[in-house]
Amino acid sequence: MPLGKPLNQKSDIMKVYLDNAATTKVDSLVLEEMIQYFEQEYGNASSIHEYGIKSKKVIEKCKQKISSLLNITPESIIFTSGGSESNNLAIKGYVEKNNIKHIITSNIEHSSIFETCKYLEKKHGIKVTYVPVDNQGILKLDKLETAFTNETGLVTTMHSNNELGTLQPVKQISKICKAKKVTFHTDAVQSIGKLKVDFNLFDMLSLSAHKLYGPKGIGMLYVKQGIKITPQIHGGEHNNGIRSGTYNLPAIVGLTKSIELAHDNLETTKTKIIQLKEKLINGILEIDNSYLNGSRTDSICTIANFRFDYIEGESLLLLLNDEGIYGTTGSACSSRSLSPSRILLSIGLKPEQAHSSLRLSLSKHTTEQQIEYTIEKVKESVNKLRNISPIKNKIQWNRFSNKGDVCE
Amino acid sequence: MPLGKPLNQKSDIMKVYLDNAATTKVDSLVLEEMIQYFEQEYGNASSIHEYGIKSKKVIEKCKQKISSLLNITPESIIFTSGGSESNNLAIKGYVEKNNIKHIITSNIEHSSIFETCKYLEKKHGIKVTYVPVDNQGILKLDKLETAFTNETGLVTTMHSNNELGTLQPVKQISKICKAKKVTFHTDAVQSIGKLKVDFNLFDMLSLSAHKLYGPKGIGMLYVKQGIKITPQIHGGEHNNGIRSGTYNLPAIVGLTKSIELAHDNLETTKTKIIQLKEKLINGILEIDNSYLNGSRTDSICTIANFRFDYIEGESLLLLLNDEGIYGTTGSACSSRSLSPSRILLSIGLKPEQAHSSLRLSLSKHTTEQQIEYTIEKVKESVNKLRNISPIKNKIQWNRFSNKGDVCE
Repeated sequence: MPLGKPLNQKSDIMKVYLDNAATTKVDSLVLEEMIQYFEQEYGNASSIHEYGIKSKKVIEKCKQKISSLLNITPESIIFTSGGSESNNLAIKGYVEKNNIKHIITSNIEHSSIFETCKYLEKKHGIKVTYVPVDNQGILKLDKLETAFTNETGLVTTMHSNNELGTLQPVKQISKICKAKKVTFHTDAVQSIGKLKVDFNLFDMLSLSAHKLYGPKGIGMLYVKQGIKITPQIHGGEHNNGIRSGTYNLPAIVGLTKSIELAHDNLETTKTKIIQLKEKLINGILEIDNSYLNGSRTDSICTIANFRFDYIEGESLLLLLNDEGIYGTTGSACSSRSLSPSRILLSIGLKPEQAHSSLRLSLSKHTTEQQIEYTIEKVKESVNKLRNISPIKNKIQWNRFSNKGDVCE
Repeated sequence: MPLGKPLNQKSDIMKVYLDNAATTKVDSLVLEEMIQYFEQEYGNASSIHEYGIKSKKVIEKCKQKISSLLNITPESIIFTSGGSESNNLAIKGYVEKNNIKHIITSNIEHSSIFETCKYLEKKHGIKVTYVPVDNQGILKLDKLETAFTNETGLVTTMHSNNELGTLQPVKQISKICKAKKVTFHTDAVQSIGKLKVDFNLFDMLSLSAHKLYGPKGIGMLYVKQGIKITPQIHGGEHNNGIRSGTYNLPAIVGLTKSIELAHDNLETTKTKIIQLKEKLINGILEIDNSYLNGSRTDSICTIANFRFDYIEGESLLLLLNDEGIYGTTGSACSSRSLSPSRILLSIGLKPEQAHSSLRLSLSKHTTEQQIEYTIEKVKESVNKLRNISPIKNKIQWNRFSNKGDVCE
């Protein structure tokens, strides 16, 4: 189904999928590459007959391709089932192998980092420091520097935030980690394919295919040569013994193609999406008492997070949904939760402000027409809700004195 | 590509894929069901807009379907990335949650069980008893009974063996576990879809889609209600918080369809494959000094494991490969290893006997013509190797006095 057409054909309204930070449509070129590996070249890459050897060669070719595109070695590639597994493997695998006593992370990490750290604290007595971010969602470097102790063995901070889009100062963090001789992992799930990522800055890096027009169920952990981790899924000798389980051949091919496509069109796609995002931000901020959460400048091109005084984000989401516009309030992972977003609270928002937020995340398929339609419908919906909503009279909104205090 | 046609079209010899225990071709009906979830209905099941809700409903429908086919509750289904992850999650998750000190397993488990147990022994001081099997690969129940201690908290034995096909006495094992009030997990990866499995016998059960004409990268862990396990991949609230990571929608749909197809055609497919396997065994055992490893009667329909005196299995594999016949020496996971199969040694074979073995595993696509061709080519190849092989004169083959001593 081409975007812009209704999913279930029940109405002729425009469909605008703006939840690409949650997951993306698989690119038809990606699916085209994958398809032969389901029914045709389906051999187990561990088998030593023709079908198996062929599959093994395909995987080696994929590793070569990825390593040349990302400027890493093929040996540093560990295929996983996705971003969450990559993050779990990086942290638990490194902590276990190297007997780490203290981890430094930020307080705006994805749940697969945050909950893993909480688990290690609670169950294994690992100390974890959650470094705060400023009101744009940028890690406070001075707080990071003072967080190190003699026991610190791992720093894990995300490359860009999944709710805000805010880019982290990874160059500086990397420099600090190198000076302290501490291993640095980054969750780059939202960044890969959106901007050029310098792998030299990191000892480990997590990525996921379905955030960049690849299939679900496949991800990668980059583990720099020399970094040792304990497997979290034991078994056969797959992935150099670090991650067992039959190689998911079609998905590996899909991941490779999605990285290749992103790489080949990186600058043009980025430029196009940035223009659309700017148009979206300008249009939406015309609404009275509306704000951009996060940074306008230090942000990946795909994610924009807004909030609207006197509005309940979920109600806004439902109205937009009826107009064929699909966004989220927080991250998809926690979108069914009634609690306010942990990340929005971390940038200093009050619970009611967090609850009034809307994340819209663009893709390479997003069109100018869709953005114009979205601006129009967000304006209409916010007005509608403000007119009927009793929130305005009930809640004392602790607003900042002007928009600039929080963000642009 | 229909089976029986060459993979790379470079020759017109018959192609006979007999490595279905390693992985199967995805059924075209399975792929057909999956395909719309890549490019069309690709929403993240955690998002609360139309696309997300639609995906969530699909997953709920899949759980309902699987639960009704397998006679379990939808809540007992945990989707994983495959059999290896399911096995790791079951064992580590249960041991961790319930502070288990002693595990009982068999000495012929799949590497994802065996290596997980070895890891728990070595790194966490968990005691593990590896109960031996008889010369057909059947767990010795008397040894199992005496293996229990006051500390035993988990028994994990496979449903059928991946190299031999031997079915384990799971009814009796379940009875013993119930009497001892010890939790019973089974790795049923090779059994599901091949014969009717009574889930009531187990507290936990692992299965994998790509062994039953479903896609790679998706599996399931059945966890009976009341059984508590610690997540091994932390993050969002997917799978009731037991296994985080974006739901792999196309793969879940594929898994469901593959279970449905297997269920609908179970008896007819089983009968057909048993006849072919019997034909294969009868044909191959006409070769002098050839033997069936494992049990002829207590075995799943798909797997037959042979050995041939004076033959090096890998050489046989290569000759057969040239004839378009694809088998393995041991399991696919360890087929690149030079060590003799741990499982074949466990049934009492000498290293040279283990090295002389060949696993042929059938599928619902296997034809009588393919079996006839295979018998002919195995005969030719064994003769050829025996004529040119110096092994006959070099190695003292510690043969059993007659075939019946080991197997049929």
